Amino acid sequence: MGLKPAARDLTLFVSEVEASAAAVFTRNHFPGAPIILGRETIRGGRLRAIVANSKCSNVATGEEGVNRARRMAAAAASEVGTTADRVLVSSTGVIGVPLPIEKIETGIRGIMADLSDDPLLGAEGIMTTDTHPKALSLGVGDATITWVAKGSGMIEPNMATMLAYIFTDAALDAPTLDRMLRAAVHVSFNMLSVDTDTSTSDTCAILANGLAGAVDAEAFQRALTAGCLRMTEILARDGEGAEHLIRATVQGARSEDEARRVAKSLVNSPLVKTMVHGADPNVGRLLMAVGKCFEVPIDASRTDAWINGVPVVRGGMRLAFEDAAVRATLKAEEVQLTVELGLGESSATAYGCDLTKGYVDENAAYYSS
Amino acid sequence: MGLKPAARDLTLFVSEVEASAAAVFTRNHFPGAPIILGRETIRGGRLRAIVANSKCSNVATGEEGVNRARRMAAAAASEVGTTADRVLVSSTGVIGVPLPIEKIETGIRGIMADLSDDPLLGAEGIMTTDTHPKALSLGVGDATITWVAKGSGMIEPNMATMLAYIFTDAALDAPTLDRMLRAAVHVSFNMLSVDTDTSTSDTCAILANGLAGAVDAEAFQRALTAGCLRMTEILARDGEGAEHLIRATVQGARSEDEARRVAKSLVNSPLVKTMVHGADPNVGRLLMAVGKCFEVPIDASRTDAWINGVPVVRGGMRLAFEDAAVRATLKAEEVQLTVELGLGESSATAYGCDLTKGYVDENAAYYSS
Repeated sequence: MGLKPAARDLTLFVSEVEASAAAVFTRNHFPGAPIILGRETIRGGRLRAIVANSKCSNVATGEEGVNRARRMAAAAASEVGTTADRVLVSSTGVIGVPLPIEKIETGIRGIMADLSDDPLLGAEGIMTTDTHPKALSLGVGDATITWVAKGSGMIEPNMATMLAYIFTDAALDAPTLDRMLRAAVHVSFNMLSVDTDTSTSDTCAILANGLAGAVDAEAFQRALTAGCLRMTEILARDGEGAEHLIRATVQGARSEDEARRVAKSLVNSPLVKTMVHGADPNVGRLLMAVGKCFEVPIDASRTDAWINGVPVVRGGMRLAFEDAAVRATLKAEEVQLTVELGLGESSATAYGCDLTKGYVDENAAYYSS
Repeated sequence: MGLKPAARDLTLFVSEVEASAAAVFTRNHFPGAPIILGRETIRGGRLRAIVANSKCSNVATGEEGVNRARRMAAAAASEVGTTADRVLVSSTGVIGVPLPIEKIETGIRGIMADLSDDPLLGAEGIMTTDTHPKALSLGVGDATITWVAKGSGMIEPNMATMLAYIFTDAALDAPTLDRMLRAAVHVSFNMLSVDTDTSTSDTCAILANGLAGAVDAEAFQRALTAGCLRMTEILARDGEGAEHLIRATVQGARSEDEARRVAKSLVNSPLVKTMVHGADPNVGRLLMAVGKCFEVPIDASRTDAWINGVPVVRGGMRLAFEDAAVRATLKAEEVQLTVELGLGESSATAYGCDLTKGYVDENAAYYSS
């Protein structure tokens, strides 16, 4: 489209036939124009296409921004042969810059001729600071589910991740899709944090066009959740500057909500993140990150912790452990932190990444214009 | 004492006569042994001395840790000529390592001969990753107030900062001191965040020995708050790796609590912090950080923002502004971010610093042993 000097900058996802659809969006108080429009569009529960551009997020652009998002939907609808209310629009990139809608309208014309069945190609068009395009597929009975996503920084989604689209040819109605999507997002994208910063553009949408017929609902939910979890890990691992995926599991909590808060506190702590980056088993930082959850009752004397399966804390006290051995496991690409609170039966896992000089480099130099 | 190879590692602060005293401590669920003991000690409302060591924080060390903190108080009391319940103990440094109490007991013997009236000397003994010792003094009537503090990382104090000691020869009783200290800490140290990580050792104590006689209470409170604010800025500016002090002021909020939450969200956002580091007026990040305060009602259309006094957002929309001019002001050592919510009359200011590669360097290499 000419939005980026030398990379793909727009993707059109099209279903052969109209599909049932559901979506969840950011809870940020400054939602982008595409989110404002998207909330209206998804009420119909039917989508034929998604059109998404990178480079410009169309956020903080006022009424004119919403007008331009509508024009983008109309341009895609006219190209696909549907109506604008059957097209979900997304934009990602810099905030506060007017959407170059003329370039997009011109560029969309004739794009149907370039449609391909390669989800990675679609993933390329929506990349910002991602280091690679992100897509995966799973089979459920005769149906297939395919995920396409992007997101690397400004990521602590709430209700959704940056941009994640899920496509299936299973037959499912919109209310069922909505329920299944929320259940999957709750334990996956909503437990992801690269940098605690919740984007103004987060969107996660699912389309089910029914061409493969009915599927077993339970098997579909299982596959949907598994794929969302896998995509969450892929996004965390490609967090800006990240060199490690961090999984923090908190068990023995009184409630799932309390387990989620403590797990999030672990993956969000800069000192835990730099500990993983430095491969240093500084277990005091784990206790600090658990202990700063003021609203969660914690009993230090019942708290145990493990780094990559090695016991490092028992009853709130640092254990004597083989420092070099734990240091070695911390060099692995995936790091598992586990905390037992000893207070109940609930558990949760959060997904994050280490904090590196690469994160600082990228974000001190990601110019606004 | 031999705790550090080549730097001061213990400070004894002594009042000529017993003083009224008050203190506030960390809210972390894993308080260090000195905090557990300190809460007991401060109940007496009287202190003659404070003894504080660096290098080892005596946290996550169980009952034996509390025993060693008691031995440290007793050793200092015997040297000063008072009782252990009149000595506040602090320890700062690595978590989970046993306090080398024999070295400390041996080292304290005879230390009274080295007492000096230079607060910067005392500040040196409690430094960890601080790049310089921190002390300041203010006069109130015939009395003087002197602050000595340390703290650079693991800093989002709650009830207090890392270690901050305030000494005055004004005559004030313990309950008055307690009330005044809490009022001053509320707007100063409790609005400071270097990295969102709340230490297990935060302590802020004040001693008033009365040798200068009575002072005007209102003037004292004013000076106490002013000094705490100034020390807060000194701590923020010396945050690990920091190159800029960030002040975030939120005005027009419905309540002080809401103003405080939004101001904290601004100084805690990695993307705002790296924006300041990169001197890039990426105003979308300001809106993102305001908008992710889900629990605070925000009206985008009433939200305005300024960077160093230059209007950059009006009614939730990015204004056209002289990019180069704002970029130039962002290079100043102190950066002022201001947000008007347009919803009420309350305001608050939070204090933080930029996020740099220096922070990552220091914390990936701050080994636990």
